[in-house]
Amino acid sequence: MKLVAIGGSDAGISAALRARELDPSVDVTVVVADAYPNFSICGIPYYISGEVTHWRNLAHRTHADLEATGMRLRLDTWASSIDVTGQRLSVRNPDGSDDVIEYDELIVGTGAVPVRPAIEGLDALGPKDGVHLLHSMGDTFALTESLDRIQPKRALIVGAGYVGLEMAEGLTMRGIEVTQVEMLPEVLPTVEVELGALVHDELAKNGVDVHTNATVTRITKTDTGLHVEGNTTDGEGLAWDVDLVLIVVGVRPDTDLLVRAGAQTGPRGAVLVDETMATGLPHVWAAGDCVVTHHRLLGTTYLPLGTTAHKQGRVAGENALGRSVRYAGSLGTQVVKVFDLVAARTGLRDHEAVAAGFTPLSATASPDDHKAYYPGATPISIRITGDADTGRLLGAQLIGTRGAEISKRVDTYATALFHQMTVTGMTELDLSYTPPLGSPWDAVQMATQTWVKKHQLDAERATLNKDT
Amino acid sequence: MKLVAIGGSDAGISAALRARELDPSVDVTVVVADAYPNFSICGIPYYISGEVTHWRNLAHRTHADLEATGMRLRLDTWASSIDVTGQRLSVRNPDGSDDVIEYDELIVGTGAVPVRPAIEGLDALGPKDGVHLLHSMGDTFALTESLDRIQPKRALIVGAGYVGLEMAEGLTMRGIEVTQVEMLPEVLPTVEVELGALVHDELAKNGVDVHTNATVTRITKTDTGLHVEGNTTDGEGLAWDVDLVLIVVGVRPDTDLLVRAGAQTGPRGAVLVDETMATGLPHVWAAGDCVVTHHRLLGTTYLPLGTTAHKQGRVAGENALGRSVRYAGSLGTQVVKVFDLVAARTGLRDHEAVAAGFTPLSATASPDDHKAYYPGATPISIRITGDADTGRLLGAQLIGTRGAEISKRVDTYATALFHQMTVTGMTELDLSYTPPLGSPWDAVQMATQTWVKKHQLDAERATLNKDT
Repeated sequence: MKLVAIGGSDAGISAALRARELDPSVDVTVVVADAYPNFSICGIPYYISGEVTHWRNLAHRTHADLEATGMRLRLDTWASSIDVTGQRLSVRNPDGSDDVIEYDELIVGTGAVPVRPAIEGLDALGPKDGVHLLHSMGDTFALTESLDRIQPKRALIVGAGYVGLEMAEGLTMRGIEVTQVEMLPEVLPTVEVELGALVHDELAKNGVDVHTNATVTRITKTDTGLHVEGNTTDGEGLAWDVDLVLIVVGVRPDTDLLVRAGAQTGPRGAVLVDETMATGLPHVWAAGDCVVTHHRLLGTTYLPLGTTAHKQGRVAGENALGRSVRYAGSLGTQVVKVFDLVAARTGLRDHEAVAAGFTPLSATASPDDHKAYYPGATPISIRITGDADTGRLLGAQLIGTRGAEISKRVDTYATALFHQMTVTGMTELDLSYTPPLGSPWDAVQMATQTWVKKHQLDAERATLNKDT
Repeated sequence: MKLVAIGGSDAGISAALRARELDPSVDVTVVVADAYPNFSICGIPYYISGEVTHWRNLAHRTHADLEATGMRLRLDTWASSIDVTGQRLSVRNPDGSDDVIEYDELIVGTGAVPVRPAIEGLDALGPKDGVHLLHSMGDTFALTESLDRIQPKRALIVGAGYVGLEMAEGLTMRGIEVTQVEMLPEVLPTVEVELGALVHDELAKNGVDVHTNATVTRITKTDTGLHVEGNTTDGEGLAWDVDLVLIVVGVRPDTDLLVRAGAQTGPRGAVLVDETMATGLPHVWAAGDCVVTHHRLLGTTYLPLGTTAHKQGRVAGENALGRSVRYAGSLGTQVVKVFDLVAARTGLRDHEAVAAGFTPLSATASPDDHKAYYPGATPISIRITGDADTGRLLGAQLIGTRGAEISKRVDTYATALFHQMTVTGMTELDLSYTPPLGSPWDAVQMATQTWVKKHQLDAERATLNKDT
């Protein structure tokens, strides 16, 4: 049995590890486009910031660790085409020669590529000019090379999503003045505007010059650096002179290889797979950022996340060996640290819930992370979304200080969502309590109780009057 | 409709609050034995340590807050007997006079009283001698009075459960040398010995002189303080000269009032109630530390916890108004901070699982709280217990540093236990990830994957060979 995985990031490696774990007799080859298998892409901002002291530390496992599992790695090897009928993968070797790898089962994890927005002048500019996209280890080395060479005083970041925010922090930590430009009305557009505003304040507090409702339209090279022009949604002109531009406005699935082999695509152009990670092409599985995401509340969507890629890769690895397991689905659980704030979400926001056919109601509470009498208590802003008809919990968004255990509190909601709990039902959960770390009703429950009080108390009272 | 609640702690107040919330027309009276309604008993160690600056801050709600909800409080009032047939409660007023309160529904939350172990000399000693039990606000004032008067240099704590450990920290923070004596083989006997040993180390690191497998047998007053004698389980004699002795070896349910009214008792002598908090006596409900605990895995047991008292009180408050809700049951979820360590558990340990008819298997892992490349990562010791036959998750015990988000990680297990997840199924949960706060598979999942690898991999492999 010969299993070939394409991709050295989360999906490919996860599939290969699981296959080797389940059946140590399987011959596993992983084809990796660069020299950096199993690197933590999510860790790049912390290498740029200087908190990770060497780029090699970003590896989840070393090359030697991976080979010790019995898998074979072919680095700097480009997967060029799949012969589905012949079960053969054509690759280009590091030396430029072509090669063919035969397989019994193939798992494709080609991942995603960064989106290049339509900015005038962008096509002519690149790392040598101090203009960067950031996705791979190659991009990372190009950026650190620029940082060392240019020694920028001022940088402009296009985009204020997860990576944009982490990079604003990372560059600020390096002593660089950061301007951040976000097209949408608020930073961290994956959460409600009222919560994103708290992150906006945190950025401002740390000296980041944030422009929302603003688009970068043109970048030109000057004698001293880069001139960036843009405008607000009101049509007001904007201009900055900076030394470095970083463009982090999201990713799109890298589907070229699979589409040429005949795979179908779905939402956002990602390759369609079923919950077993089957592509529909015989003996070809796919997982990670190149494929659609099965979401437990939204159905088939596209939501590329490392956690999801790990799970999908694992499922693909099992099924390639003949098992029949299904990916249980994403809830879009995410968390980001921005300076001393942590923001997290799971499930749906109001507009997403409406689109999915629910009738969402929301409520925001600000319970303390632990009993106020014990030193250091801080409020957590928690927005709960539930369904008006069924009372079902649909989503939760949380923002609070680092140390307020935001990231694990969102996990309680994620686990509740997994089991389709009602908002009311959250009160039944037996959660932990000690005054330095929580409350008899945890903040998680105080927030759902606020929702119930706002949206269901009248109904509860009506039931009571009927009963008595 | 006239509702009377007995008890100013979690159960009584929770019941009263919920009743007033659901039906603002209900006449609610709470009979409180002391002058401290709705005080956080769990916060006492932090008042003793000096971290809570005034005892009044320990109130969850002030007297005025409580009265603003429309409930009536009768403080320093002792509930002396219940006339079940007549629906009348006899009380002794603060001035010593007797009174009768008529009720339509009665909710009893008399709580628990501290256990007095069989120690020679104990009966003749008390706060004036520097010998203390600790459960109520009255006990707290007696202790602080002793601390001020005696200015102890050395204190001995009998018991190393939750309160004993918190008090060891609290007295140490006051600059007192603490000796701690625990009868069982390890401190924090609610977790496995291998994990309790980590807490033991933390105590020792902070200068606490810990004696396990040791019993205090005799306390005598001397000219200069207190002479404490004891012995180890090996029969070795022990002796200490100290200035203060604190005895915190657990509680027993305070059932006198209910038993005299005809209520039945169950495990550990607690009053038997069903999941609606009905005592079986007409119009008499009971909740909190005086009643049995319905446990989702153990059935009817006794496990007095504030979180449980809040939930049971709420259920009693609703049902007293004519609703028909059931307490969903405890999982015994608990957490304690001991200096810079946090220890938590939920569900069952091996021996408890055996007693409940399961076939438990356990495995311990030590995943980092977050990616090791990001500064400050620390290992969490996580012991997972699952059922050999069904693969069902039965329990989790976690110990790690403060800041490692132990208390909310145990909540993910508690939520999983609530929904009877399998250990394997934990891998499907969509938990949050960012390198400073977690891993692509959270520590919670790495621990369950360790269990699966240890106990189920052979079975998984066998299935595979059958499939192919």
